[in-house]
Amino acid sequence: MEGIKSISIIGSGNVAHHLGRAFNEKVKINGVYSPNIENCETLAQKLNCFAARSIAELPVSDLLLLCVKDDIINLVLKDLADSQRVAYTSGAIELSSLSRSDNIGVLYPLQSFSKDKEVDIFHVPFFIEASDNLLAQELFDLAYSVSPNVVFANSEDRKNLHVAAVMVNNFTNHLFHLAQDITARKKLDWKHLLPLINETVSKLDTTPPKEAQTGPARRRDTETINAHLALLDGDTKEIYALLSKSILNTYKTND
Amino acid sequence: MEGIKSISIIGSGNVAHHLGRAFNEKVKINGVYSPNIENCETLAQKLNCFAARSIAELPVSDLLLLCVKDDIINLVLKDLADSQRVAYTSGAIELSSLSRSDNIGVLYPLQSFSKDKEVDIFHVPFFIEASDNLLAQELFDLAYSVSPNVVFANSEDRKNLHVAAVMVNNFTNHLFHLAQDITARKKLDWKHLLPLINETVSKLDTTPPKEAQTGPARRRDTETINAHLALLDGDTKEIYALLSKSILNTYKTND
Repeated sequence: MEGIKSISIIGSGNVAHHLGRAFNEKVKINGVYSPNIENCETLAQKLNCFAARSIAELPVSDLLLLCVKDDIINLVLKDLADSQRVAYTSGAIELSSLSRSDNIGVLYPLQSFSKDKEVDIFHVPFFIEASDNLLAQELFDLAYSVSPNVVFANSEDRKNLHVAAVMVNNFTNHLFHLAQDITARKKLDWKHLLPLINETVSKLDTTPPKEAQTGPARRRDTETINAHLALLDGDTKEIYALLSKSILNTYKTND
Repeated sequence: MEGIKSISIIGSGNVAHHLGRAFNEKVKINGVYSPNIENCETLAQKLNCFAARSIAELPVSDLLLLCVKDDIINLVLKDLADSQRVAYTSGAIELSSLSRSDNIGVLYPLQSFSKDKEVDIFHVPFFIEASDNLLAQELFDLAYSVSPNVVFANSEDRKNLHVAAVMVNNFTNHLFHLAQDITARKKLDWKHLLPLINETVSKLDTTPPKEAQTGPARRRDTETINAHLALLDGDTKEIYALLSKSILNTYKTND
């Protein structure tokens, strides 16, 4: 066999949708299975492939792509033939933690997918690991067919990337929500903050975040920090205090 | 007098540079003063105006724009004639906290300015407050000459906007730094995270951050949260735990 020429997919969530549509232009997608029948059929229609009603019904393919929640990867693996090559898409699950040790790999896209929002797969980095070098190379080639940004990474690296991704995506988004909450309580338009958010991010193109840091904590302006804390309560107040402390600690030695 | 036709500036930092250059196309900038002589002369040259060596040397103008650090606003005000109309640019300082109560206003640009990076002033929101309605209107018109996004806002609103700005700009940037630190320790390329950061922000155009939230804490995946905490230490671990707790609290009642 030379490379991965056909895929079946288990799962019909955001990852399955986005990867399915990206790979559909490069390899043959034979079928998709998901316990959510409606999502499964929607995805099968999009990919112009067979909507299986069980794992057993899925057509045999060069690769079975598991786009399922972390905690059921092992469960699904039990239902698959040992000879079936499988790749999962999770950042958090270590390869060595799984119930199988052959014909298993990882193809981890470092991106947050939403169903209704197009993502440019060409700019998504993929991290590859597998139980053997041939599968690793073939998963690399598969990912490389849709993105120039493909890297071999072991489970520990992948887990660290996942933590970093949680911080820059999930936690950043939560800060956005808390800020929106502050503006909403004062009946101020949250959209006023968007140019500032865009500027914060666009600086990253030219300046490492450690150098780009500004604000009350960066200039050790405890008066403003305390005035801000007095306006806040609950988790938001705790977060303001802790992040300010962390910024103070980051710059205490090299001002 | 009809509107602000001329400005002198005190300060030669990032705010003075960016506002000076923006207003220079709309009104006459007569002079600039800063105790930092080198920065003062650089700015005066850019604005093609007089570099004063003292506040007393500054040419009289319709408005004196104070682009100085929060804690010296009051100090500078003492040196100015009562009849001189003054506006400062700080989000944090309340109008009522100052030593003068007439001919004083605020023109607060909600943006983070860096010296070497162009900012599109047209997209910067300005928040206006003043000791009298005429000055408020004239500051509004001045800001409106460079940005369509000008809003009257009292000191309390402005302070809340400033807190929100700290959260979406300073704290977000610090999360970026902590994430970069994680990748650096594993010798992974920090740039892999940039597409994810861009996606996080671009979602805001269509989806409120509360709805866009994803990640381990959002799906109450305590196993992944604990695995991530085990990888971290110090402030980063505390921040991971607190932000996860805050996300859990945000979504506990309306899953």
